[in-house]
Amino acid sequence: MAVYTEISDEALRAFLADYALGELVAFRGIAEGVENSNYALKTTAGDYILTLYEKRVEPRDLPWFLGLMRHLAARGLSCPLPVAARDGEALRMLCGRPAAICTFLPGVWPRRVRPGHCAPLGAALAELHASGTGFQETRPNGLGPAAWAPLLENCREGGDAVLPGLVAELDGHLSGILRDWPRDLPRGHIHADLFPDNVFFLGDADGAPRVSGIIDFYFACTDFLAYDLAICLNAWCFEQDFSFNVTKARAMTAAYQSLRPLSEAELAALPVLCRGAAIRFLLTRLYDWTHTPPGAMVTRKDPLEYLKRLRFHAASTDIHAYGL
Amino acid sequence: MAVYTEISDEALRAFLADYALGELVAFRGIAEGVENSNYALKTTAGDYILTLYEKRVEPRDLPWFLGLMRHLAARGLSCPLPVAARDGEALRMLCGRPAAICTFLPGVWPRRVRPGHCAPLGAALAELHASGTGFQETRPNGLGPAAWAPLLENCREGGDAVLPGLVAELDGHLSGILRDWPRDLPRGHIHADLFPDNVFFLGDADGAPRVSGIIDFYFACTDFLAYDLAICLNAWCFEQDFSFNVTKARAMTAAYQSLRPLSEAELAALPVLCRGAAIRFLLTRLYDWTHTPPGAMVTRKDPLEYLKRLRFHAASTDIHAYGL
Repeated sequence: MAVYTEISDEALRAFLADYALGELVAFRGIAEGVENSNYALKTTAGDYILTLYEKRVEPRDLPWFLGLMRHLAARGLSCPLPVAARDGEALRMLCGRPAAICTFLPGVWPRRVRPGHCAPLGAALAELHASGTGFQETRPNGLGPAAWAPLLENCREGGDAVLPGLVAELDGHLSGILRDWPRDLPRGHIHADLFPDNVFFLGDADGAPRVSGIIDFYFACTDFLAYDLAICLNAWCFEQDFSFNVTKARAMTAAYQSLRPLSEAELAALPVLCRGAAIRFLLTRLYDWTHTPPGAMVTRKDPLEYLKRLRFHAASTDIHAYGL
Repeated sequence: MAVYTEISDEALRAFLADYALGELVAFRGIAEGVENSNYALKTTAGDYILTLYEKRVEPRDLPWFLGLMRHLAARGLSCPLPVAARDGEALRMLCGRPAAICTFLPGVWPRRVRPGHCAPLGAALAELHASGTGFQETRPNGLGPAAWAPLLENCREGGDAVLPGLVAELDGHLSGILRDWPRDLPRGHIHADLFPDNVFFLGDADGAPRVSGIIDFYFACTDFLAYDLAICLNAWCFEQDFSFNVTKARAMTAAYQSLRPLSEAELAALPVLCRGAAIRFLLTRLYDWTHTPPGAMVTRKDPLEYLKRLRFHAASTDIHAYGL
C-alpha cells in the first residue's frame, strides 16, 4: 500500500497532453502495490492505471518489463498493456520519476485464498509461461540464488534480534539449498512475484472464480519456470496458521500441468525450489525489517512468516508432501 | 491514506447481492481519506465508492451524515449520494463495520493550491451552506470551542516534548479565543473539514478550475457558517512556508460573499474564528501526535503547522489582514 509521489494537477495535465486519451475525468491514489505509486486514472477514453516507478525499481529494467507486458498482452494474456503516448513511447517521466500508463484490468484480488482460486491460478501461470516464449531479451533474476548469501550477510547483525538463533538456522538452510539447487531446468520468463494481490479474479456465471488479470511484472525475469510454481506454492497454499493445504497445491499443480507438464527433473527439484522461494522472500523481508528505522511510515512484512514456510519445506523430503 | 479493513471477495459479493448494481467488475482500495476505509468499486452499473466507517466515526452519527449528503445532492450540490440497497437502506454492515456505497464523483483534488482554485472553492462553500437549509436535524460540533480546553488538558503532559513552551503558549491563545468567541452568528450545516483533499476540480474548456465535487462529510455539523470559511482560510490560503496569501483569501471570500454576503458581525468575528479553526486542528493533531505510539503505522500530521497559522491569526487584529 503506497502512494509515494504527489502529482500536482498541473503536472498531470501537462503529462496527459502527450497522450491521445481525451480529457481527464478522475485521478485517485490506489492503496495497493508496495514498490511503486499507482493511481487510478479515468479519462473520457476509459479507465487506466498510472504508475510512477519509485526508487526500488531500476529504471534501466523498465523497457524490458514494459516490453514483456506488451508481448504477453499481444498473445492474449490479460495483463496491463502499456499505453503509448502520441510519440509512440510508453515509458515517460512525471515528477522526476519514470512513469507509464497501462490499461485497467477488471477483477478483485482474493483477500482470502480458497481452494477454488488455485486451479485457475495454476492454469494462468502456465499460460503466462507459454505466452512468454518468443520474447527474445532476457533479464537475469536479481533476487535468485546468487543474491541470497549476500542478503543474509547483510542481515547477520540484526537478524538474531528478530528471533534468537535465526541467523544460524538460515545459514544451515541456505547452504543446503545452494548445494541442492538444480543446475539446469526449462527456463523462460517468470513473474517471480505472483502473490494473491497480483492476480485479479471475477466470478463465472456459476460463481466459480476465473483469473481476469495478472499485474505487477516488476520482479519478472528469466529463470527456471518451475521456480515460479514454487513461489506460488509458497504464496497461495499455506493457511493463516502456516499449515500447508495439499488440496490447494494439488489443484494448482494439476491445472498447471494440464497445460505444461513438468519434467521428471522439475518434479524432483520442486522441494528445493520451494525452499529457495521461501528463503528468497524471507531474506528480502528480513533485510527490510532490520534496515527500516522503527519510526518509518512503511509497512514492514513479517519475515518469520517465511521461516515457518521454509521449515515446512525443509521437512518435506519429496514431492508427495506437495500432493504430487 | 488508509485502508484499514480487508474485505474478502466472498463478503463483498454477499454485500453487493443486496444492491441492484449489476455485476462486480473491479474493487481497489483508495489511498486517500484518513478516518475511514475507502474502495473504488466498479460494477456493470458504473463507478462507486464503498466506505467502511472505522472506529473514529460514531455509528449513531452516520444516519445524519448520509441524510445531509442526500439533502445536499437533491439540491444539486455535487457531493456523494448514498446508494440505497434493495431494501431502501443505504447504511449497512460489512465485515463488522457500518458501510455505505456512494456515487463516484469526477475530478482531482489539488495537491498544490493555486489562486485560481480559491474563488471556485469560496463559491462552492456558499452553495454548500445554501443547500443545507431545510435539512431539519442538527448535529452539534463535537470539536467546537467546548472541546478545546479538554483536548489541551489531554496534551498537557506530552505537549512540551513536541515544542518547549507549547502548552503555556496554547493556554494563552485558548483563553483569548474563548473570551472573544462570538455568542451568536448565522448558523447552518457546515462541512467543518473542507481541506483541499476533500474538493475535486476539473478544468473548464479554457482550463480554469471549477469544483466538480465535495466529499467526506464525516465532520459535518451545525455551527456558525462563517466558521467554515475560517477553516477554509486556514486550509487553502497559507503557502508552504506558512506565509498567508491574501490574494487567495480575497478570491475565496469575494466569491463566497457574491453568493452569501457576510454580516457585519460575521466580518468582525472572522479573525477569532480563524484563531479558533487553527487551534482546533492544532489540538486534534497534537492529541494524535502525543497519543500515537512511535511505531504505529499511522501517518501523524504535524501539529506545529497549525501553530504557525495560529500565530499569524493572533497577530492579525482585524479583517484587513485577510484582505477584507
